[in-house]
Amino acid sequence: MAATPKYLTGDSAAVAEFIDKFDTFLFDCDGVLWSGDHIFEGIPETIALLRSKGKRTVFVTNNSTKSRSEYLKKLTKLGIPSEVDDIFGSSYSAAIYIARILKLPEDKNKVYIIGEAGVEEELESEGIPYIGGTDPTYRRDISPEDFKAIADGSMLDDDVGIVLCGLDFHINYLKLAVGLHYLKRGAIFLATNVDSTLPMHHDFFLGAGSVHVPLVYASGQQPLALGKPSQAMMDAVEGKFQLDRARTCMIGDRLNTDIKFGIEGKLGGTLHVATGVNQKSDWEKEDPIAVPSHYADKLSDLLI
Amino acid sequence: MAATPKYLTGDSAAVAEFIDKFDTFLFDCDGVLWSGDHIFEGIPETIALLRSKGKRTVFVTNNSTKSRSEYLKKLTKLGIPSEVDDIFGSSYSAAIYIARILKLPEDKNKVYIIGEAGVEEELESEGIPYIGGTDPTYRRDISPEDFKAIADGSMLDDDVGIVLCGLDFHINYLKLAVGLHYLKRGAIFLATNVDSTLPMHHDFFLGAGSVHVPLVYASGQQPLALGKPSQAMMDAVEGKFQLDRARTCMIGDRLNTDIKFGIEGKLGGTLHVATGVNQKSDWEKEDPIAVPSHYADKLSDLLI
Repeated sequence: MAATPKYLTGDSAAVAEFIDKFDTFLFDCDGVLWSGDHIFEGIPETIALLRSKGKRTVFVTNNSTKSRSEYLKKLTKLGIPSEVDDIFGSSYSAAIYIARILKLPEDKNKVYIIGEAGVEEELESEGIPYIGGTDPTYRRDISPEDFKAIADGSMLDDDVGIVLCGLDFHINYLKLAVGLHYLKRGAIFLATNVDSTLPMHHDFFLGAGSVHVPLVYASGQQPLALGKPSQAMMDAVEGKFQLDRARTCMIGDRLNTDIKFGIEGKLGGTLHVATGVNQKSDWEKEDPIAVPSHYADKLSDLLI
Repeated sequence: MAATPKYLTGDSAAVAEFIDKFDTFLFDCDGVLWSGDHIFEGIPETIALLRSKGKRTVFVTNNSTKSRSEYLKKLTKLGIPSEVDDIFGSSYSAAIYIARILKLPEDKNKVYIIGEAGVEEELESEGIPYIGGTDPTYRRDISPEDFKAIADGSMLDDDVGIVLCGLDFHINYLKLAVGLHYLKRGAIFLATNVDSTLPMHHDFFLGAGSVHVPLVYASGQQPLALGKPSQAMMDAVEGKFQLDRARTCMIGDRLNTDIKFGIEGKLGGTLHVATGVNQKSDWEKEDPIAVPSHYADKLSDLLI
């Protein structure tokens, strides 16, 4: 049984104690710092405050459509000047997993991507060959000839040993059919993340998990997810930042990704903020997905 | 415990007894009569033989992309001359369910289609208004303006009270995002069928179920499926053909659709043929999905 979460909003002593407990803060972005392109009030000041106290701030996101350099641009534009090394995305996590953990033989190391440019850029940064993704060859309707060429294998690349799925706004039947056939040939099934929804315009659209679930349903296989709450991502974060888990806190709005990620990663603490998907009632109910160690109405309540 | 299935192949007495037991035979098409556009040997002759003995032959298919009139063309071209009334497809089943069972008020009776022309044609035949489907407006990439117009509702039609999903070879993010939002507004979620795979070129592609499963995953809702094994389809078949279930046999290659459909419909018998998805070993194993009353290597084994 977890201890009762500590409420930080409006309690300056609790906030001071909370900040003192940690050297590193891992931040989810959407629903914590911003919603879409709208940054929440007081966020740049909150990040600046933590940094002024010598804390390390790392942005850990499941959004696979943007590479770290694109995230850097967004953070800077929204008033949070950062370095590329402050950012850890699920596409980057996938690239590291493929390059440094899987290490497949060269003739099976090519990745078939269902996803956007963010996935491609991170694979490139690790020198991993890929096909699919934003290639116009796959951004079109499937033809009768395609069905035949996929079935007889002439459209498939023998070097592909991995199918990697992220959020793809250009998903279509052709991409899915090709991905399904690589899986049937034994390719390893990876996903940047399995979020079912994507918060946008104060509303929800289809997330990465909803885009690749056709492959799960048709193949009967489940992907290894490399975004939160996967501990493959935590291991990669720890390896990169050499962090002391006991002195690290995960801050997020979602119980099933962010808070679970922090708890399963045995971090010193987790902070739930109510500016995104989940509310207090979600972890207060019976049998919750995850219960944070701390909670606040919004991240800028740390500014007290 | 079901009785041991009777094996018909090569046993002329068993075949004669089998044929005598029934007045009506319901046939699945793909995997029984043909694979894609390739008709199996002896099929036209088998159908002709049954008809010559005064048997009614009805083709019951989950393929939603073709209307009954298109199916009629295919049957005729492949050597099985038929009438449109001999055909019962999942799109037709859905149209009948919407028009005659659901009977929604006029201002909520519009259907948002994810699917091909077969669904549209069958809705038209029942006088049901629809949007989506093959309309080029929805066959394109989603734009930033679309996200906004979907979220604020300006892109949505207030008359839509039903989301109907069939197999759609032109599936894309825009169609799914629009469908998801109709569901969130309370639209009834229907599917022509939930088959995960589609047999083609002696291989498997994504079936209707794999095309609409993103909506299931993102919305948390399950559709009411109107194709096999749904008994909504059996009720519609019975109503149309006035058949005596005890003197009716369902013939198919899939346990989870065809054979289950016949058993749950309390038909007099079911015949499994091994020319499609499932093999004898699938119903012989422990805890099988469904066990037929009869089996044969192929449908033309009835020609003995």
